[in-house]
Amino acid sequence: MKTCEIISVGTELLLGDILNTDAQFLAQELAKLGLGVLHQSVVGDNHDRLLKALGQAAERSDIIILSGGLGPTPDDITKEVACEFFSKELVLHEESLERMTKYFKNKGLDMPESNKKQAMLPADCVVFENNNGTAPGLGMEKDGKHILLLPGPPRELKPMFTESAVPYLKQFSDKVIISHNIRTFGIGESAMSQEVEDLLDSENPTVAPYAKDGEALLRVTAMADNEEEAEKLCAPVIEKIRSRLSDYIYGIDYTCIEEAVVEMLKEKGLKLATAESCTGGLIGKRITNISGASSVFDCGIISYSNEIKHKILGVNEDDLKKYGAVSEQVAKQMATGVLKLSGADIAVSVTGIAGPLSDGTNKPVGLSYIALADKDNVWVKKLNTGRKDRDYNRYVNASNALNMVRVYLNKR
Amino acid sequence: MKTCEIISVGTELLLGDILNTDAQFLAQELAKLGLGVLHQSVVGDNHDRLLKALGQAAERSDIIILSGGLGPTPDDITKEVACEFFSKELVLHEESLERMTKYFKNKGLDMPESNKKQAMLPADCVVFENNNGTAPGLGMEKDGKHILLLPGPPRELKPMFTESAVPYLKQFSDKVIISHNIRTFGIGESAMSQEVEDLLDSENPTVAPYAKDGEALLRVTAMADNEEEAEKLCAPVIEKIRSRLSDYIYGIDYTCIEEAVVEMLKEKGLKLATAESCTGGLIGKRITNISGASSVFDCGIISYSNEIKHKILGVNEDDLKKYGAVSEQVAKQMATGVLKLSGADIAVSVTGIAGPLSDGTNKPVGLSYIALADKDNVWVKKLNTGRKDRDYNRYVNASNALNMVRVYLNKR
Repeated sequence: MKTCEIISVGTELLLGDILNTDAQFLAQELAKLGLGVLHQSVVGDNHDRLLKALGQAAERSDIIILSGGLGPTPDDITKEVACEFFSKELVLHEESLERMTKYFKNKGLDMPESNKKQAMLPADCVVFENNNGTAPGLGMEKDGKHILLLPGPPRELKPMFTESAVPYLKQFSDKVIISHNIRTFGIGESAMSQEVEDLLDSENPTVAPYAKDGEALLRVTAMADNEEEAEKLCAPVIEKIRSRLSDYIYGIDYTCIEEAVVEMLKEKGLKLATAESCTGGLIGKRITNISGASSVFDCGIISYSNEIKHKILGVNEDDLKKYGAVSEQVAKQMATGVLKLSGADIAVSVTGIAGPLSDGTNKPVGLSYIALADKDNVWVKKLNTGRKDRDYNRYVNASNALNMVRVYLNKR
Repeated sequence: MKTCEIISVGTELLLGDILNTDAQFLAQELAKLGLGVLHQSVVGDNHDRLLKALGQAAERSDIIILSGGLGPTPDDITKEVACEFFSKELVLHEESLERMTKYFKNKGLDMPESNKKQAMLPADCVVFENNNGTAPGLGMEKDGKHILLLPGPPRELKPMFTESAVPYLKQFSDKVIISHNIRTFGIGESAMSQEVEDLLDSENPTVAPYAKDGEALLRVTAMADNEEEAEKLCAPVIEKIRSRLSDYIYGIDYTCIEEAVVEMLKEKGLKLATAESCTGGLIGKRITNISGASSVFDCGIISYSNEIKHKILGVNEDDLKKYGAVSEQVAKQMATGVLKLSGADIAVSVTGIAGPLSDGTNKPVGLSYIALADKDNVWVKKLNTGRKDRDYNRYVNASNALNMVRVYLNKR
């Protein structure tokens, strides 16, 4: 098996200014290709240290993946140092220059002179086109060692890796690794793990539990000579998990619960409306993250103040005073209010105290009420995360609202 | 200046199963202590490779910070390998054993036999107590080189670093590093860099450009004997940048443009409302990310369909047919519509094609119209990102809407 290593280049990483999400993405993708990653490192935009890091990497690995430092400014030197290391000369790559010029033109701009250096590439490399930015990436070889250069911004790196680096790397990959993520909502990581304890020791496929942002998932991973065989190894284990966790599972290989919700709404031909207080638009934002959400979602009201809750959603003013904005009563009226206003089939609402500060009442930070209404009924759920973390509370509130919709649709 | 490096130990990092947030945290904290980090690396739980990594690190750095691999299972070997490298023997540390026994007892559990190895420490080390888990950390020295061991889980590592590693490291820290981020909107990275080209070569403070998600920023970083002197070095350079980039700058050391907008609205005592189509609640979500946004934001309408644009926001049906939902006319009417409905002082609206698919018209994916209305006027801006990336388009649309509010408020 060929060994791979990842070198992330950027002083901003050494200073901790940005989180190294590129390295995680690359590690995951290389694992899927069956390419073992034994080392990852980070170096700054520094000629000598980068050259030395390349030397050490080439001693122990067959393929070196470098990300970052392909920008137009003088401190971007990754390509130059990599070419120095491989003794390759940079020449102008007309096609890339044309593509970059067009890229700027489409934005109504002239290409700055400084960007031209991004089109200078070694003559015998494989060029990775950048469809989301200016700097092209590349793959090049010398004496059996390979260097791949990718841009640092994740929005550019990820699609370029999938479109161009994967085909380049396929030549080195003799095993296939396949993973499936079984995503659940409403069960904790420990409880979920207990349900499948006997499966956690299996070796091929492996079964591993993960927890994040109020959700738990199981990853089933198999290695085999080809995709078909790997899938055959996974299938019976996934079936076992499915039968044990049943309704907690919202999807296999979905990336998020909103994907499941949009899919189910489409299937059933139903429309959803939202009324959000503490989540401030996050539920709407998450639903409309999904391309094609327009066929199932057409209206959301962000009613951050009591006045708007009354004026637009028709929440009773006396109830607002008597029970407070964060109450069962108000949550219910928000849901029924937006249902009427929008003409949707179902509506979901959230009102809560996201924190970190209290709302001036004696209700705890982390408390929220989530309601779901259809034409005949309205249900409400009380939640208390016990945390003062605003981002966490808002995210988990939105997830619970989406899950309430999922559970409702499951029964329809 | 002493140099530091970070080695993260864990096969789960090499596989990309978890994001290396520890490395970012450590890098940030070490920078604050004035300890330069020139290398970060990740190795698996593997004896030979870890030993080799330590050797390379000790050649180039004075202080090596290792995180992870202090657990009770046989594959946790970081401490054992570090002691082998420094030729130190492990002996039982009674105090840690007692603390760990108590830790389990408090949870109503007996301590598993396997955890005892976590209390084996080199005789002459400085023990870092773990108040959030079992494994103690430590600092140790040999021939002027230092190794610090910290547990991998962030909720154990972070407090231990602050409580115990910082006091240990203070002995090496004779300099202070201070950074300020000058954040701009509406100017590209290249154009911004050209405006301050002469400053990019300066050495103390350094000035470095960064770009992310449609924004560009300049980081000014100074090193000095104390904070006051470092600030004195930064001040004149920041002043120069401020005078050259003036209106493009939305804030210094702000984390995002919504922070600037909420701050300005508060200052001027004005309220904002939003009407969102393609951004689907993202503007509202970003504004309400900011704690205390409730005093300046109380209403947002997510009008994803034409019907809702007409019914709730009062957009003219004929205009919707004639010009289409993604048009100057509709953007303007969305802004004026939500302004009336909400009673806010200003309103901002976005309508566009986020993609990746077209909306069935011949308008390009990436096109959007952003409008801003106050009681007397309404302005509209056309934007075309030229990209098909839904997340990017939505984010940049929301940023441009927020920037339009900022520019408006700047002149009031």
